Parts: sequence; structure tokens; C-alpha cells
Amino acid sequence: MPTYSDPEGGRLLAGDELQAWTAALLERFETPPDIAADVADVLVTADRRAIASHGTARLPQYVALIETGTMDPRARPELLRSKAAIALFDAHNGWGHHASRVAMDAAIEGARDAGSFTAVVRRSNHYGIAGWYALRAADAGLIGVSMTNSSPLVAATRGVDSLLGTNPLAVAAPAGRHGSFCLDMATSTITRGRIEVANRRGETLQPGWAVDADGRPTTDPAVALEGALLPLGGTEETGGHKGYGLTLLVDILTGVLGGGTAAPDIVPLFSTEDGKSDLGQSFVAIDPDAIDEPGAFIARMETEFDLLTEGRTAPGAPGRILIPGEPETEAERRSAERGVAMDVEHHASLVELGTRAGLPFPDTTPIGDRP
Amino acid sequence: MPTYSDPEGGRLLAGDELQAWTAALLERFETPPDIAADVADVLVTADRRAIASHGTARLPQYVALIETGTMDPRARPELLRSKAAIALFDAHNGWGHHASRVAMDAAIEGARDAGSFTAVVRRSNHYGIAGWYALRAADAGLIGVSMTNSSPLVAATRGVDSLLGTNPLAVAAPAGRHGSFCLDMATSTITRGRIEVANRRGETLQPGWAVDADGRPTTDPAVALEGALLPLGGTEETGGHKGYGLTLLVDILTGVLGGGTAAPDIVPLFSTEDGKSDLGQSFVAIDPDAIDEPGAFIARMETEFDLLTEGRTAPGAPGRILIPGEPETEAERRSAERGVAMDVEHHASLVELGTRAGLPFPDTTPIGDRP
Repeated sequence: MPTYSDPEGGRLLAGDELQAWTAALLERFETPPDIAADVADVLVTADRRAIASHGTARLPQYVALIETGTMDPRARPELLRSKAAIALFDAHNGWGHHASRVAMDAAIEGARDAGSFTAVVRRSNHYGIAGWYALRAADAGLIGVSMTNSSPLVAATRGVDSLLGTNPLAVAAPAGRHGSFCLDMATSTITRGRIEVANRRGETLQPGWAVDADGRPTTDPAVALEGALLPLGGTEETGGHKGYGLTLLVDILTGVLGGGTAAPDIVPLFSTEDGKSDLGQSFVAIDPDAIDEPGAFIARMETEFDLLTEGRTAPGAPGRILIPGEPETEAERRSAERGVAMDVEHHASLVELGTRAGLPFPDTTPIGDRP
Repeated sequence: MPTYSDPEGGRLLAGDELQAWTAALLERFETPPDIAADVADVLVTADRRAIASHGTARLPQYVALIETGTMDPRARPELLRSKAAIALFDAHNGWGHHASRVAMDAAIEGARDAGSFTAVVRRSNHYGIAGWYALRAADAGLIGVSMTNSSPLVAATRGVDSLLGTNPLAVAAPAGRHGSFCLDMATSTITRGRIEVANRRGETLQPGWAVDADGRPTTDPAVALEGALLPLGGTEETGGHKGYGLTLLVDILTGVLGGGTAAPDIVPLFSTEDGKSDLGQSFVAIDPDAIDEPGAFIARMETEFDLLTEGRTAPGAPGRILIPGEPETEAERRSAERGVAMDVEHHASLVELGTRAGLPFPDTTPIGDRP
């Protein structure tokens, strides 16, 4: 996921304070305390990891889903069916973050017994950053996979209309002294949010990122916003059919497997007018210790990443070869030191939400006042 | 995988004849009949699907591995460890195709019991097309995943040297009247074989496919052959770090999980001078019927692909939106009708191999003599 650099005029708040306030706020909007705690953890982890597009900046949109009755904040996931290495949960249109945390925990527990486990969630909502769930497995010493389908924003290869979501896929695994491997990626080349930013800043897009409303490649962000994103790899010539296949793969393993709405018919993201989201999520956990001596897998991960991170770098490379997830882990470390960064609009929207809920937003400090 | 168009001066042979000859040939080179049958099936399926780079054209290279003692054609996979939803096999440096068929079958059988199953193979060799194993699960009504690590040909994002393989990933699922979904992709933007073809033909590469020996982007195939391939997505600017993550992900789930050689240290592809391959392969099967009524998953696959294949197409698109795997399925249909196509070098190499083994290659017809 793209990490964001410090916003101009932004504010800082200790992550724990932001998380406590977020949980308390969600309780004001009918969310039971244990569910609110899960949602706050996932959202503020995104903020700590500088994935501002998926954190507490979305709170006003989540609250709108509750206030319009689009999402049920009290719903609890129900286990519909299970076998030794698979389970299907119905989220009953409740918080995606909570249902997904429950499903990932079922996968982790199941994999400890069976060696591997797949948990699928139907009738769910937006679940924040895919990586949170994969990292939960990695923190437990397992390989974790997390994916979700999402509202259509991406054109199929050869197609014009947005028929598929940006369908993120995250995989994490413990890597000993190298921390965790955490690949957390949209299966489109970029997110719509990044095109919106380029449009505000008057920047030109890279070729292969988007098409216009008639399916022609464009590098103009304003034109792209009327069109569709392209899958990872761009056009067919540069391998975009592979990204299209990956986007579909996530859809098949989530919504289609779990029994959800077909991808092209999923309602727009955070819409309060088009009905329920009915998203699907899937989680896989694999226990490396089930087939090897304890610690052997992590020792091999360390060797692998020793060799990679010591590799020669290309001219002009901004630094050494990275392990997927390193920029986010570095952002998390910085957030722990100085607090979580919020841009002006993000901060203002939370202050307003707090005022409305009778739960004043904690005092913040300007970026720059702390080291 | 890229399908190939008819080669100039090429020959045609019925797929069943080619498969019977291939199996008999392998038996001449110390391969037990049941193992030879598996290898011949996988190789000739690649030919039938017009993935000429992974089919019987590789036979001389496989035979060289046997004759130099690099690979053991008699070795049988051994189940080392297992739990309810995971198994680890040691291929004992035998045929990758056979060990992988055994492992995929274990995953299919295991998923029928447990709902999902992961089978990992260590100390293996090249296993041909990743899609064959995934399709084996799809043909059994399950979702199948197949992946392998491979010899280093790909630079890490920011890196110069080939530290990672093209590490293919295949996922297949039954799609009812739409046949099967089968995504079968190298996690590099393209294969090295395609650069070799471009070099022979004097073509220019697309930007983002390769770098030179110093890590600088190049579109000159001759220069690229001295350098490295780039991961899917190309450079960091166009999302190449995602392809790098996918390449790593396959490596972690195969060699690292299974206990193999670290990726940068894997010997060159088909080398007879650098020791054993020690590749890792992983297979996952998921039974959709474990969490839903029989047939419900396939009905949803049909709806999904109805909507996609009927989607509007972009100006200049060579046809309608495809389902991943459709070009290969179409090639397979054509091969069944008129025979498998071989180019001149491919045909000559098999004739020579047959002569050497005292097993004359069957008579072929020129392309063009049959419809």
C-alpha cells in the first residue's frame, strides 16, 4: 500500500489516544465495545502505518453508513458451515473489520490444528487494510493471506466499464530479524485515491494506469476519473491481462466462493443510497511448523532476506532493496515515536465528528513541533 | 501463459500419438511407466495448449538432466509429514511433474475431506506448466492453486542482479458453461523466452520488461539478455514493486516453506553442471461445496463471466473480454482437431532424440496440409 509523506499543516496525535477516541466514538454510534475495539485497532493501524486512505479519515463515511441504516453496527458474524480446514461466516451486514478479525482468528486457530485453514466471510462491509489480517497471522508465527472484493473501479483487459474492484490481496509471514514480510496490494496498478490526488495537484499519470470513459488509455487524471483504472500491468501489451486475472482471482476466492453479489453489481464504495455492500472476504492461515522443526521456516526467511537486502542496487535507486511491508513498518515506528500524522481535512472531520457525538477530539500538536 | 501462433514450416502430429511416444521415450531413459505417463501428460498438454515453451520441446533438456545424473528419473516422492490439511513431500530429486501430480492429488483428496488442503514439495525439479495442476483440481470441481519457484532471472525492485525466478502462479476454478477459469502466469512481466524471440526477430521490447547488466531499463533484447527481467508492473513507478512482492510470495510459499535452497542460490534452468535444482512447489485445493449447496459456486461463476464477457470493449480491442485461460482452451480445441503444432527445430530435435533412443518419432504432416 502507498505510504503518505507528511501533509502540509498536518497534526499529530499519539496512536493510543486516537485509538481510544475512535473506539469510544464508534460506541456512540451503536457499536458494541468489543466490536468497536476491533474496528478502532484496524483503522488506527492504517494511520500508524501511514496508509491514510484506509484509516480514521474514513470515519465520517462509516458513520454515514450507520446513520442511514446501510450497515448494521451491532451485527455479529455467524458461523454458517465448517469442516476441519474451512469455515463460512455470515457477517450479517455488520462491521467488516470485526467479522474479518473473527474469521482470521478462526483460520489461525484452525491452522494450528490442521496445518492450514481457509475462512470465508459473506454479506460483509469494507474491512480497512488487507494487511492487518495477514499480519495478525504472521504475529502468531503463521503465514497469513487476506483478500476482499470491492466496488467496481477497474476495467477488464479489453473492456471499457468498471466491472471489477481494486480487490486487494495481502500475504504476510514472520521473517525473524527482518520483521515481517507483508505484501499488501491492490490488484489495480494504483488506487483511485492516488488519481484523485494527482488531479488536485495537476500532475500527469503514468501510462497504463487508467482509461477514459470510452476505454482509451489516458494520462490526464481528470479524464481518468470519468473512466476506469487498469489492472496491475496496465494494457494487454505490458501484461495487464495478468493483473486482470489477479483481480478476478480475488473476486472468485471471496465473493464468488462466499456467495456474494457478482462483482459488476456491487454497490459503489461508501454509498448510502444503493443498498448493502455484500462484500466477500477470505483468509488463509498456514502453519510452517506443521511440516518442519519449530523456527526452521523463520531461519530460511532470514537467509532469503539477507541475500535480497544485500543485493546490488540500480543507478538512481532511492535506497537498498526492500522487503515488502518495510515502508509501512518504518512509518509505524515513526508514529510510535512522534504520534500519528493527520492532514488538515482529516483532522477537521474528526473534530467535527467528535463535537457532533459529544466526544471532543483529543488535543493535537502541529507537525514540526515534535521531532 | 503466452500461446504461440503457427510456426513457419512447422509440423503437425496428433496429440495422443505425441503423448504415447513421449511416454515411451522417457521409459527408454530409466523413467518408470507410471511416472513417464504423468510427465508425458503434462508436457503434451502444454503443446496442445500452444504453450510451446513448456512442452515436448524441452525433452532434450530433460534427457540431458537424466544422462548427466543431475536428476533421478526413478525417484518417487515421499510423504514426510502431514496433518489434516497440510502435507510435505520430498521429491528426492525426481521428476517435478510426477511429484507435483501426486501432491496435487493429495490436496484434492484432502480438500474433499477437510474443505481445503495445502501440499508442499521439496527437492523437486522443473514441473512444466503451472496450470496443469490447477486445472486438475478444477476438473475435479475444486478451486486449485499451483506455484513453483525457479532459477533466478528477475531483478528485485531497485536491484540489478537476477535474484528471483519468474515464479509462476496458477489458479483454476470450474466455471460451468464458461469452461474453466485458469490464470497461469509468470510473476515477471514476460518470460525470458519471449525476449529471446524478440532478439532473433530484431524487435524492440516494451518499456518495463527488462534492465541491462547495470540495472538500467532497456528496450533492446540483446542488452536485456545480459541483464535481468523485471517483475510484473515493470519499474517502481508503474507498480513493479507489486510484481516483486508476488514473485517473493511464490518463493516463500514454495521453497522457503518447503525447506529448499534460497532463491538467489538456485542453479540455472536446465543446467547440467551446477548440481541439483532443489525447487519447491505448492498446491492448494479448496472445495466450494464444503460451504455451500452443490453447484451453487459454479452457478455464481457463470453469472460472473456472463457479465464480464458481455462487457463493452475498448476501441481497437482484438475481441471481447476474455476469461483467463480461454486462449489456451481454444488452442487445445484446435490441437484436438488438427494435431499439435511443432516448429522446425522442435520437430527435428524430437526426431533426433527418437533415433538416438531407437524409438523413431511418428510421421508428421506439414502445417497447411490439414485444415
